[in-house]
This record gives sequence, structure tokens and C-alpha cells, in this order.
Amino acid sequence: MLSLQECQQIINTHFNAWVLPQEPANLYDPMRYILEPDGKRIRPALVLMGCNVFSEDIGEAVFPAMAVEVFHNFTLMHDDIMDQALMRRNREAVHVKWNQNIAILSGDAMLIKAYALLAKCPATCQDEVFALFNRTALEVCEGQQYDMDYEQTSHVSIEDYIRMVELKTAVLVAASLKTGAVIGGAAAREAELLYTFGKNIGIAFQLQDDLLDVYADPQLFGKQTGNDIVSNKKTILLIQALNLAVGNRQKELLRWTAAQVFDRNEKIVAVKALFDAMNLEGKTNALIQAYYQKAVQSLEMLENITGRCSALQKVSSQLLHRKK
Amino acid sequence: MLSLQECQQIINTHFNAWVLPQEPANLYDPMRYILEPDGKRIRPALVLMGCNVFSEDIGEAVFPAMAVEVFHNFTLMHDDIMDQALMRRNREAVHVKWNQNIAILSGDAMLIKAYALLAKCPATCQDEVFALFNRTALEVCEGQQYDMDYEQTSHVSIEDYIRMVELKTAVLVAASLKTGAVIGGAAAREAELLYTFGKNIGIAFQLQDDLLDVYADPQLFGKQTGNDIVSNKKTILLIQALNLAVGNRQKELLRWTAAQVFDRNEKIVAVKALFDAMNLEGKTNALIQAYYQKAVQSLEMLENITGRCSALQKVSSQLLHRKK
Repeated sequence: MLSLQECQQIINTHFNAWVLPQEPANLYDPMRYILEPDGKRIRPALVLMGCNVFSEDIGEAVFPAMAVEVFHNFTLMHDDIMDQALMRRNREAVHVKWNQNIAILSGDAMLIKAYALLAKCPATCQDEVFALFNRTALEVCEGQQYDMDYEQTSHVSIEDYIRMVELKTAVLVAASLKTGAVIGGAAAREAELLYTFGKNIGIAFQLQDDLLDVYADPQLFGKQTGNDIVSNKKTILLIQALNLAVGNRQKELLRWTAAQVFDRNEKIVAVKALFDAMNLEGKTNALIQAYYQKAVQSLEMLENITGRCSALQKVSSQLLHRKK
Repeated sequence: MLSLQECQQIINTHFNAWVLPQEPANLYDPMRYILEPDGKRIRPALVLMGCNVFSEDIGEAVFPAMAVEVFHNFTLMHDDIMDQALMRRNREAVHVKWNQNIAILSGDAMLIKAYALLAKCPATCQDEVFALFNRTALEVCEGQQYDMDYEQTSHVSIEDYIRMVELKTAVLVAASLKTGAVIGGAAAREAELLYTFGKNIGIAFQLQDDLLDVYADPQLFGKQTGNDIVSNKKTILLIQALNLAVGNRQKELLRWTAAQVFDRNEKIVAVKALFDAMNLEGKTNALIQAYYQKAVQSLEMLENITGRCSALQKVSSQLLHRKK
């Protein structure tokens, strides 16, 4: 059984050997840049691991795995324009390093390249892989639209937020695993167990991301905490707070989110104190645990059928205990 | 044999019956808007006509034809952002009516929808249709990138300009016809003849567009002439002028293209006089004729093989004699 690290290495080897055209440079250079050498490659590695549960030979899953990575990076390139994010992985975002038009068009071309890679999937499962990819890609767009809509909406329910996270983040993790499973020859029910595992672990992962931004150990986290508080980002913490706070607590929360001028640290300390008073760390951890348990259950059922899920079980446990 | 109008009607019937999701509204409403009811549907009609040359039954070409139309409108939605075009078909562009982020994301979702429609093509020719579509879609992006690059470049050769037109506009016309041909069961050489016809008629069409902006009969043209002159758009006329003008003519041309403040009509009259002095209308008509003749030749060869090209011959002759 291949480990996550081994799968990441396989994917990187293929990306490092992948040749994109030189001209027009403004179309292809940004692709090369965002598909940086030796990236983390989590999603494509999950395609290979999903395949490996059902087949010793993961060769036929490599191009579809690369398709998923190219698609994911296309969404990052366009999301960074939409979110006006200046940095991505400690480097300038493409629309900053080049310009916005180049980021739009390079992103478009990446989406096309993703489909061209996907088309190299084995003929026997092409229809199923394409249908899953198309549905998932559209759901990711829907998730991004809800995310932008919710930033402009005063009241967002916890259910709506989690559904947005599911669409924007979790379905791609789920589809990565299922794509690999389908290529590896999984039965429909087995592939679906991996999808359910991926969806729930994806939701848990994103909620954990929200939590770490506030409650991570700064020394282990590797970057400043509190950024989401400063920018009023609608995370699971702020959404729970906006839903639960009443009376003076509500007033204070709204005063901080409405403040135009404030001291960064003062705002973080004050909002975090409000979160603490409502036990939002505990509540969010309970939510994460609930999704994590659902994920683990699906994977256990698949382990009982195949006996080949130990590498994925390890990944899943590492994700739960991550500090950054 | 189906006429262009009949094919346009078939496509419109299918688009009018096509149901997109309601939510998120900001993702799907712009798609409905740009895919307006009863659009011109030239490219998808060409898919059907290409199919009809080889088969009485064009039913299997309908979804791939819709894919081409959705793809084309995706490029328009994103191009209008990049070109800062405010209007499209006498209505506000999507990024104006909604906003830029919505136009980026709706466009992305349209590209995915195009692939979902394309996936409904018959299994027997799926690989060939996908490969052609992927190559073409990437070429269209390359063409748009060259177009943007050239707007920032002082010297552009006539060959480079025509290559850009080929990529940005003509290959999609060519691929539309060839996609239909492949679905209709054409032999490789026959499908290629339609591709060559479409490529050359597409180039001729775009050069004619450039020409009509300056030399159309305003009463028949239906809109103001001279817009490209006013905006210094790098058309085949301006590019030839920049390549050919010397001495005082060159000075005057550069003075007009550099002018920040000017009277609109005065600039049009002056630049047009320079074009006239270099006989650019005649030179451009000769170029158009050359591409048109190449197109006609390919179509005649196919007519000799199939005897089923009269509807396309009619389209081709109408395109050459259009006044708007």
C-alpha cells in the first residue's frame, strides 16, 4: 500500500516532467508558476490512494489525478482575483505578479488543460469519471458563489455555512478519492463509501482550518493567528457567534465587526473573549468530531470489505491531529 | 438538406427548453442572460450543418452543438471583462449588469457546462470530438492572449495578426463544422476539408468585420462606423497602415493614434484618408478574397465527393456579401 508521501512524490515526478508550451508566455507562465515544483499535491495523491485501495496498479490514475490538481489550482487562481487575495503559498498571487486579465485567461486555459488530462482516463470508466468531475466542478463553483453571497449577508445559518463548505471544499476531496476508486475497479457501493469518507473529512478539515486561525498554538501554526477575526471572515466561529450572541454580547460583537478603525490585537483579544464566553472552541470541536466520526465509520466499513485502507486511515488520523 | 435558418431554429428550440438550476442565482442567472432566447446560434448551426453533409439524422449532433455555443458565450463573458467592454449585443455586459466576480465565476461554470453537454456526444466518436474541442478551446485562449499582447505592442506583423485571428475566431468555426462532420460519420479527409473551409471562411469573416467598421454603408451597417479607428483597435487596417506608412503619412498616423484629446469625427476622417491613400480597402479586400477562395475550394472538393454541400455553399456566399 502506498503512503500519502509516496503518492505525493509520484504526482510531483509527473508534474515536474510535464511540458507546457512556451508561447504565449503570458498564458502558460502563470500555469507553471501556480503549479509550482514539489507542491503538496494532496488531492491528486488521494486519487492515487483511492485507486490503490482496489488495485496494485495505480498507473491509469495518474493523469486523472493531475487533472484534479490542475483544476484545484485553476480555482485558486480565480478565487484569488475574486477574494482580492494578494498572496498564495507565501508568494504573490498570479493577478498580482502579472495582472488580472492574465489570471482570468490563464485560469480558463488551466480548466481546459484539466479536461485534457482527464480525457486520458481509461475508456472503460470515462463516462463515470467525466460525469463525477463535471458535477463536482460545478458544485465547487456553486460553493464559491455561496461563499461570496454569504460575505454580503448579515444572517447565515450554520447549516448553510456547512453546505457551502461541502460544495466549495469537501466535494473535491470526495471526488478525488472516488475517481481513483472507479479507475481502480471499485464496486459502486465501495466507491461511494470513499466519497462519503472524503466529503466528511473535507468538512472536518475546513472547520478545523477556521478553528486553527483563532486557537492554534502560534509556535506550531507557522503564521499569525487571528487573521479571520481581523477581516470579519465568515468562519464557523463568527457564524456561530452571530447566531448565538444576545444582549450585550451581541452588541459588542456587532460593534467589533462594524469597526472601521481598530487596533488589530485589541480586536482579536476582544472577539476571542466573546468566542470563549460562548464556548465556541468546544462547540466547533464537537462539530469537527461529528464529521470526523462519520468519515472514520465509512472508511472502517470499506476496510472491512477490502482490508486495504490502512494508509488512508493514517491520513485521516493525521488530519485530525494537525496543528497547522 | 437543412438550411442555416432551419439549423438555427433547431438549436434555439433546444436552448429554450434547456433548464438551468435556479440557485445560486448569481451563478446561473448570468448564464441564462448571455444565452438569450433566440440568439443567432451561428456556430452550433454549423455543427448541425457539418453533420448534415454526411447524415440525414442530425439528432446526435445537437448536444455537442449546444456545447460549442455555451463555450463561445463563456469566452464572450470573460473577454468583455478583459476588454472592459460595457455592452454586448445591445445589452449590458454581464460584468456591468452584475459585477466582475460574478462574470468570472459564471463564465467558469459555463465552460464546465459546455463540457457536460459535449459528454453527451455518441460514444463512438467521443475521443475525437473531445480532442478537437480541447485543442480548439486552448487555441481560442491563446488567440485572446495574443490579442491582448498585441494591443500593448507597437509593431505587429500582418502574418502575426492573421494567426491571432485564426486562433481567436476561425478555429472555433472550423471545429464546429468538423465536430458535426465527425458525428455524422465523415471520413478523416472529408472532415478535414470542412475544417479547412471553416478556418478560411472564419479568417475572411473577421477581416471583413475589420473592414466593415470603417467602410460599411452606415445605413445598412446598423451602427456607427469608425469605432475601431477612434479606439486605435489593432485591426487589419491599422496594422497594415502601421506597417506600410512612411514619412509624413507615418508621422500623421502616429500623431492620431497618440492623441489623447481629439474630435471623434475629425479623427475618423483623417485616419480613413490615410487608409485610402494607401489603398487599404483594396488590399484588405484582396486578402479577404484570397481566404474566401481557399474556403470555397475546400467546399467544392467536398461537394464533389458528397453532393450535399449546397446549404453550406449558400452560407459561404452570403457571408462574403454581407453588409453588416
